[in-house]
Amino acid sequence: MAVVTFTTDFGPSDAYVGAMKGVVLSAAPHAVLVDITHAISPQDVRAGAWALAHAAPYFPAGSVHVAVVDPGVGGARDGIVIAAQGSFFVGPDNGLMSAAAVAPRRVFRIENPAFRREPVSPTFHGRDIFAAAAGQLAAGRPIDEAGRQVATVAELAMPESGALGDDCSGEVVHVDHFGNILTSLVSDHVDGRWELQCDGRRFELDGGRTFCDVERGALLLYPGSSGRVEIAVRDGSAARLTQMKAGMRVQLKRLS
Amino acid sequence: MAVVTFTTDFGPSDAYVGAMKGVVLSAAPHAVLVDITHAISPQDVRAGAWALAHAAPYFPAGSVHVAVVDPGVGGARDGIVIAAQGSFFVGPDNGLMSAAAVAPRRVFRIENPAFRREPVSPTFHGRDIFAAAAGQLAAGRPIDEAGRQVATVAELAMPESGALGDDCSGEVVHVDHFGNILTSLVSDHVDGRWELQCDGRRFELDGGRTFCDVERGALLLYPGSSGRVEIAVRDGSAARLTQMKAGMRVQLKRLS
Amino acid sequence: MAVVTFTTDFGPSDAYVGAMKGVVLSAAPHAVLVDITHAISPQDVRAGAWALAHAAPYFPAGSVHVAVVDPGVGGARDGIVIAAQGSFFVGPDNGLMSAAAVAPRRVFRIENPAFRREPVSPTFHGRDIFAAAAGQLAAGRPIDEAGRQVATVAELAMPESGALGDDCSGEVVHVDHFGNILTSLVSDHVDGRWELQCDGRRFELDGGRTFCDVERGALLLYPGSSGRVEIAVRDGSAARLTQMKAGMRVQLKRLS
Repeated sequence: MAVVTFTTDFGPSDAYVGAMKGVVLSAAPHAVLVDITHAISPQDVRAGAWALAHAAPYFPAGSVHVAVVDPGVGGARDGIVIAAQGSFFVGPDNGLMSAAAVAPRRVFRIENPAFRREPVSPTFHGRDIFAAAAGQLAAGRPIDEAGRQVATVAELAMPESGALGDDCSGEVVHVDHFGNILTSLVSDHVDGRWELQCDGRRFELDGGRTFCDVERGALLLYPGSSGRVEIAVRDGSAARLTQMKAGMRVQLKRLS
Repeated sequence: MAVVTFTTDFGPSDAYVGAMKGVVLSAAPHAVLVDITHAISPQDVRAGAWALAHAAPYFPAGSVHVAVVDPGVGGARDGIVIAAQGSFFVGPDNGLMSAAAVAPRRVFRIENPAFRREPVSPTFHGRDIFAAAAGQLAAGRPIDEAGRQVATVAELAMPESGALGDDCSGEVVHVDHFGNILTSLVSDHVDGRWELQCDGRRFELDGGRTFCDVERGALLLYPGSSGRVEIAVRDGSAARLTQMKAGMRVQLKRLS
Repeated sequence: MAVVTFTTDFGPSDAYVGAMKGVVLSAAPHAVLVDITHAISPQDVRAGAWALAHAAPYFPAGSVHVAVVDPGVGGARDGIVIAAQGSFFVGPDNGLMSAAAVAPRRVFRIENPAFRREPVSPTFHGRDIFAAAAGQLAAGRPIDEAGRQVATVAELAMPESGALGDDCSGEVVHVDHFGNILTSLVSDHVDGRWELQCDGRRFELDGGRTFCDVERGALLLYPGSSGRVEIAVRDGSAARLTQMKAGMRVQLKRLS
């Protein structure tokens, strides 16, 4: 019984996600369907890639991950299926899946009519190509029947990771629903007192393990659940307090 | 293993949808549950009918589609189950299901106590009647055991479809999450240059197949994924640019 | 085949819920996953407790209810599993589950490494402890293997219920998505004419059974679907009209 996950920018209110799920279930009636998110901002391929890369590793081998953030739908970019790390990824070849489907990968174009729903709408490959292909994979059809193998996929340039040091800089890579700020810096332990500078603003904050290590409303620097150094406000929003946003440069200097 | 889908105006934050799913699973533990949407505006029967009609056709035969947008709950309207196109529809008889459950149909009132959860709350038939009835159908109980057969259902007047012509008019029937505008006009091919008039505003735009056929930020006229002619802005929102809303009249004239 | 439900404040846009579901499915591939809600306001334990308590009773025996609204994550509060009413509850021991997991209960700390995902992130017990433990329970592992039994759980003080009388007062306990106002007062029948006072404002309204009992736009007092007396506006929002909010005192006096 295969798991099929969905990551899209389709929002909560339309029938598009439902149509995709119906197509999957028509081919693979026993599939377990899981929404990762449909709240990616329209056309924000980078945010979709982030969500997919941070959810997919936790699913069992053999899962099929469908991702559709696809401003180039119907244009020159290919629709592809990827086998990587024992699981499958289905979506547009625009970088959306490159961070999640870690190499080594086998990549195939979706060309076989059995992996598509004809006639294919030029503006809704999510339903007519990606959901159809995911249904075939979830039903156990071999991935190499999808179409010709291709050597490379479009890669999305992700900010380079760097180690947290006593005087270092990195980038804001994500701001989550709680207003926690994820940086490109990594560390498995943070302590001491730090100075944070970002976009002309300056803050002092303590290092620690978890929110309770500081007072309510205070800033905290800590190793987050994905291994990256994060900045949070206990029982509050660091994004609101600091006005930090994805893409901004961040400087961190140890004070003690 | 039956699929049970849900289309409601219950929103994301309350326990109502969860309670309905619990009732379905209590009767049909192996049901596959799928959310179409819970983001229909409160009491907007027409928007619910639209979502249901555009998702249900993609599900496998035997699926049970529960729909609850029900301003008349507890009043004179019946609760009904419909067999149509090999699938089942469960909800209030207020027009919500008439566009999805295309004739020929068999329609039954939900009267059999085995299809209800007693005592029935007069304000939450979603849980006590519709989810309970859906659970029975998903468990394989024959639909004609629900209650007396009825000859007709409430029909929702949907805007009439018309062919896209060189000088024609129609109606905006839906604006989606991306700000794409769906019209009542149908065509399987759009090309050339067009003049669009709506609500006192005038635009010129190209016909095409998909968003990439125009520059970023430009308007496009194209046959959408449901067969209707749509208006979009590449990498943007046509709704924001044109201020067009559902129900407005739209005029289209070919310029070249 | 166990049902696993999820109630969190994680919002719609991050990968956190997806990661939790992946962890559950890795241990229990046949689990049926159901979202109660992820739209609890950040850190609002009371609202999470409300949602869980109003959804859990409708699920079949043996269901596993995971709840994560957890401002104290990584701190002194325990992570616990509860067996109550034939079902299981998994989450932080901060009162979130006390209203849903009605006594008699058996409660165990989550200490067994087999019920955790190592290394445990100090800020994401949802993934590394609660989802991991839920996966074990869904896979059929006995709950008493989780860890040491404990005698009590943190209880959340919920507003006391009172009977609706001819001159009585209570509290607003919840405002739902429709703007319906749920009070701490209970009754299985409401009729007559009433005076409502709340936060310095005064309204007159009819008692009844369901929304259709009053004119469009009019206020209604009625026994709601959870047994509590509610206040609604037919085809409108009582919250908007009355400005009543959770926690406010409400006075009701029968006029006729």
